[in-house]
Amino acid sequence: MLKLYYAQNTCSLASHIALEDAGAEFSIHRLNIAANEHHALAYLAINPKARVPTLVTPSGILTETPAMLAYIAQTFPQAELAPLNDPYAFAKIQEFNSYLASTLHVAHAHRMRGNRWADDENAILAMKKKVPETVSACFAYIESEFLPGQFAVGDSYSIADPYLFTLATWMEGDGVDPSRFPKVYAHREMMRARPTVQKALHDQFAD
Amino acid sequence: MLKLYYAQNTCSLASHIALEDAGAEFSIHRLNIAANEHHALAYLAINPKARVPTLVTPSGILTETPAMLAYIAQTFPQAELAPLNDPYAFAKIQEFNSYLASTLHVAHAHRMRGNRWADDENAILAMKKKVPETVSACFAYIESEFLPGQFAVGDSYSIADPYLFTLATWMEGDGVDPSRFPKVYAHREMMRARPTVQKALHDQFAD
Repeated sequence: MLKLYYAQNTCSLASHIALEDAGAEFSIHRLNIAANEHHALAYLAINPKARVPTLVTPSGILTETPAMLAYIAQTFPQAELAPLNDPYAFAKIQEFNSYLASTLHVAHAHRMRGNRWADDENAILAMKKKVPETVSACFAYIESEFLPGQFAVGDSYSIADPYLFTLATWMEGDGVDPSRFPKVYAHREMMRARPTVQKALHDQFAD
Repeated sequence: MLKLYYAQNTCSLASHIALEDAGAEFSIHRLNIAANEHHALAYLAINPKARVPTLVTPSGILTETPAMLAYIAQTFPQAELAPLNDPYAFAKIQEFNSYLASTLHVAHAHRMRGNRWADDENAILAMKKKVPETVSACFAYIESEFLPGQFAVGDSYSIADPYLFTLATWMEGDGVDPSRFPKVYAHREMMRARPTVQKALHDQFAD
């Protein structure tokens, strides 16, 4: 059985939703980041990066959201979470997810995790200040180049949708005005209404 | 036919090598970043992110190195550049490539591209200062958790290898001492001796 290590309000939610979408059997284990549980030795043995999410599979351990999402899509093909037999269409979804991981999520991380990239307090403040601009630029790109209809990429629901939804829930916290991005906003509302999203959110915040 | 837009000394090299490894028919088009050719209107129409690489395929345009590498592996299965029929083994390669894109390359980018994340000159200098530490931490993780033998991930050559090689050529420029990472260093030397790597490097720097 699969086991997802997650923390609340992190990108772990994307894989959690995808596991629900896939109809997978899985368990979840919450880490309290504020209590530093991601640095506990038992967790570091599973994920030496001390980050979430981590997915324990029957074959071994996986990290990095884009890789986990593709694994879920490929392991549960009947759920049709990616166009598995069309390398170009699959790559467009991976392109989108890779952009979310390496550009949008990274822009966002400069608000709370500036100490990853500088030690100086004023530098960390300067990074924080630019976040509304950099994150808005990412959403402007997504609004312009993706979301051709109801879904993030192409005309079907895919592993791109829970990932976009997850990062789009951070807009207000990042000082981004969602009304500037009506397609992203409509996607977020559409996603929030889905039973698999509601189930994942409920389970992540249940005690 | 495929067409790769690239710039010298960028992560474009990874996809270029993979195309050589795949035995693909492709052309290359060099962009001069110093001359701002990546902001020319004709290029922005192809890649509105104004970044390299971009791969023009018969089906459409692709960006983001991890997605391009997976596309190359899937489009040329006979080259065996990824374990395409094993979702977990494929995901391990994608995990590695995603880490390179969203953590190692991002750490490196704080040396020359700090203006992406802060406007203040002192903040940009503070980011630059931390790069030897952050990039070294990434290579320490790779040295410890990957490179089980000759190759980056698993026991076969894959799309992870040209990507690691490409980013490993930046170590000295980032103030990282390669002698601290003997496995990464040996991998870089092994890669540099491969004919496909020599061909890609030659073609990228030919006039």
